[in-house]
Amino acid sequence: MTSEQTFDPASAWAPSDDRPLVGDELRALLTQAFGVEATSPPAPSPAAVTLDVGPSALGDAAAGALTAAVGAAHVVRDEAARAAHANGMSYLDLVRRSAEPPRAPDAVVLPGTHDEVAAVLAACSEHGVAVVPFGGGTSVVGGVAPQRGGYSAVIALDLRRLDRLVEVDEVSWTATLEAGLTGPRAEELLGAHGFTLGHVPQSFERATIGGYAATRSAGQLSTGWGRFDALVERVRVATPAGDLDLGRAPGSAAGPDLKQLVLGSEGAFGVVTSVTVRVRPVPEARRHEGWRVADLATGVEVLRTLAQRGPRPDLARLSDEVETAMGVATGGGGEDHAGGCLVLLGWEGFASDVDHRAAAASAILDAAGAVPLGETAAESWRHGRFRAPRLRDELLGAGLVLETLETATSWRELMALHARVGDVLREALDGDSPLVACHVSHLYAAGASLYFTVLARRDADDPVGQWTRAKAAVMDALAAAGATLTHHHAVGADHAPWLVAEDGELGVEVLRAVKRRLDPAGVLNPGKLVV
Amino acid sequence: MTSEQTFDPASAWAPSDDRPLVGDELRALLTQAFGVEATSPPAPSPAAVTLDVGPSALGDAAAGALTAAVGAAHVVRDEAARAAHANGMSYLDLVRRSAEPPRAPDAVVLPGTHDEVAAVLAACSEHGVAVVPFGGGTSVVGGVAPQRGGYSAVIALDLRRLDRLVEVDEVSWTATLEAGLTGPRAEELLGAHGFTLGHVPQSFERATIGGYAATRSAGQLSTGWGRFDALVERVRVATPAGDLDLGRAPGSAAGPDLKQLVLGSEGAFGVVTSVTVRVRPVPEARRHEGWRVADLATGVEVLRTLAQRGPRPDLARLSDEVETAMGVATGGGGEDHAGGCLVLLGWEGFASDVDHRAAAASAILDAAGAVPLGETAAESWRHGRFRAPRLRDELLGAGLVLETLETATSWRELMALHARVGDVLREALDGDSPLVACHVSHLYAAGASLYFTVLARRDADDPVGQWTRAKAAVMDALAAAGATLTHHHAVGADHAPWLVAEDGELGVEVLRAVKRRLDPAGVLNPGKLVV
Repeated sequence: MTSEQTFDPASAWAPSDDRPLVGDELRALLTQAFGVEATSPPAPSPAAVTLDVGPSALGDAAAGALTAAVGAAHVVRDEAARAAHANGMSYLDLVRRSAEPPRAPDAVVLPGTHDEVAAVLAACSEHGVAVVPFGGGTSVVGGVAPQRGGYSAVIALDLRRLDRLVEVDEVSWTATLEAGLTGPRAEELLGAHGFTLGHVPQSFERATIGGYAATRSAGQLSTGWGRFDALVERVRVATPAGDLDLGRAPGSAAGPDLKQLVLGSEGAFGVVTSVTVRVRPVPEARRHEGWRVADLATGVEVLRTLAQRGPRPDLARLSDEVETAMGVATGGGGEDHAGGCLVLLGWEGFASDVDHRAAAASAILDAAGAVPLGETAAESWRHGRFRAPRLRDELLGAGLVLETLETATSWRELMALHARVGDVLREALDGDSPLVACHVSHLYAAGASLYFTVLARRDADDPVGQWTRAKAAVMDALAAAGATLTHHHAVGADHAPWLVAEDGELGVEVLRAVKRRLDPAGVLNPGKLVV
Repeated sequence: MTSEQTFDPASAWAPSDDRPLVGDELRALLTQAFGVEATSPPAPSPAAVTLDVGPSALGDAAAGALTAAVGAAHVVRDEAARAAHANGMSYLDLVRRSAEPPRAPDAVVLPGTHDEVAAVLAACSEHGVAVVPFGGGTSVVGGVAPQRGGYSAVIALDLRRLDRLVEVDEVSWTATLEAGLTGPRAEELLGAHGFTLGHVPQSFERATIGGYAATRSAGQLSTGWGRFDALVERVRVATPAGDLDLGRAPGSAAGPDLKQLVLGSEGAFGVVTSVTVRVRPVPEARRHEGWRVADLATGVEVLRTLAQRGPRPDLARLSDEVETAMGVATGGGGEDHAGGCLVLLGWEGFASDVDHRAAAASAILDAAGAVPLGETAAESWRHGRFRAPRLRDELLGAGLVLETLETATSWRELMALHARVGDVLREALDGDSPLVACHVSHLYAAGASLYFTVLARRDADDPVGQWTRAKAAVMDALAAAGATLTHHHAVGADHAPWLVAEDGELGVEVLRAVKRRLDPAGVLNPGKLVV
């Protein structure tokens, strides 16, 4: 059975417009630091490995029920489609494609409406087929791994056909978007009405509205504009037990906010089919500027002042000394040798408001002794902001570990946590020449996120074990420090063992009670979130 | 057994500093509109009725277990204490004190620590005693009604002894406050550190931190500063099944936000014992100003512009034509005869920020043709902002219905909902000379709240039935309109029958599943939230 759809390979980011991504300076740094060569064109990345998916284990009865639910053309069992849904996009996902290739889902099912999603869930509950909701497939925490959860088959429930802009409320500045819309397509549809969603995660090009909701996505403008979970006014969810339609008003005292129980539920409670989100007019002005501050502590105090006293920027990003030296923020060129720490700020919106906020920020940076770098560094970041995954894929061909991990904590704990995570990573990868870079971003009144990038020489004999141990050491350290397990990346399979540190034993029991009520057969995304 | 504590009578607000509250103009209006006399000093209000509480039904085994949990001095069964916990402060609560006096709880139990709260819940679960968590007792939705829920006894779990400021994090601008602190006492303790919570609901003088959290309280400055549920960084809860301690960072993608499941749970899932909330430095500047706009629609457009384009005021309140004419916003004097609609805005914070925001708002109001009234009207509102409950108590002595109800909806639906609720109330109270006043407040980008005040001639034969029918008609209308059941006042017993309209059948089932997991014996606040 062949679909009308074409499927991008799992793990493949579209080619970059501006190769080579690995510039001369970074190439020299790699050779010097890790004794590895980043050839150009790069050696084949593990991302390029073709998977041998094997035969589908979907039984005839289940296939018949799924066909009845969505039509034969939308139950796809060909190898290319299944391989394209075999994994997410983490470093381990890519490395494992060589070392221990994942099993692919037994079919890709493509419902076209909310009711068809509900019918698929009913069919899978009845026939004992696990269901992995699938948007852009950009999870870096094993969130789309096709685990069977004790059942004999698993499908990827691909939401790409739920791709409509249902409604724009131009008075209330809200829009209802279906779950399968990608970021660029949502912006295109909203732009025709003069509005923007303005949510820009690193995965913007491929990730979907439903994925944003299911993982509590944070975008690059979240400091000013809010996390995705803060933008959602209403959410519609199909579950095996029925529908949820949550959110009657922008504020309410009518009991617990069940929206916030569904947001971040990662397909384990149900499938988000549409959300009504806050939108705003396409900005009439946009400004991005860079500064250099003496050190990380100085930069943190600047960001804290911006977050607490305001007026707050939309984008705020402070690279530590290592990230600044590597030029990670400005595109991986390693061209920045002036020392100190790079601060990038951005403002979008009405022109007068952008001017007011930018001027206020300049005064705060001046007072902190920051050196203004103008728009160049910030525009360089903006130009290259979607290149990181492609750069990662190229560098994997050079035999490196290259992964990111992140957390958030209070302003009071931020510097200590920055030091602690760096220490843990350097100790865990001792002998592999680890480089740990970090930026502070996503500011709140009470704290901010820390986003680490790790480079090291890959252990060719046990690449999975090497990174699994290092990552576990960091997760243990985050749990011990009282910081959140993840600010950007969700729980998935990879973080699930540590969820008890976030929510406590009883909190996890509450999540299990909710899951039992909504998914009595336990078919929804086995092994993710609550296990 | 007598407590060291003294207990204010249920329903009693402290005497006002500036009697008489019922001024000459309002007196004349009452006589003209309703044919009733507001005498001065007022006739006894139903609030003044002394309850006959009868004997305590608490069994010896349960009493022994509670004594073991908190000490004999903190298990109080005298009549005054029990009578003080017999009802909340709604119009129906007061009217019922004459018509159908409530049963009082069988004891008032006063734990002093989180662990003692947990011990009380364990004792009650074991011995089959219902538990009504009790803070300031200011619920206007039956939230503290001592229902037994099938058990033979019920206690009021009074949290007044949990009254500590546990910690101020002056770097992260957060503070950890115990649940029994009242608004004024919390401000006093925070003020010693130079900080303020800045959460000012109408019930500020008596309501508690735990009550704010359990009911998702909205304060008068919520437009700028946020609802209480938006201020909570961390919450600690004792439940019969164990403890919850939720909130590791100011933002997180580590699964659903369980904080938002506990906030608004109204004592039905557990007892909030402390919260860590955002605080801010005591404002260096404060400004309140008034304007007159031509009509409600013009005022709504002004508020929408302020909420969406910003910069946003902290306080925003727009009285409709009736409320403006009655002078409700400025203290019940009925002195405002110039027509149109009154707009009150307020800003607090750093001086430069207050000036910037106030100037921007002035420009928007100018453009809408608003007449500036300066600070007088706004300061009059500010001076009298805690008088309304006392005024209500006085007017009840004059034989009136006097109650408020509220909702929230999107900007697009706001004017239609305003008209609809007014129509429903006027129709339901037809023949009783109803007056329906309203203000728009608590602005969000996507919408705002509508807060109605209703006056009518009381049906002396069936006052409870008269208001119960009118209120039900409004709740049905809100449900049909897709608006929230309540933006300010929580669900309690009074709104519980309509919760299915807010959350859907399955949403209510999710709440029940959570309750079963946390409160297997079903002792916690029976008849409230989920029934």
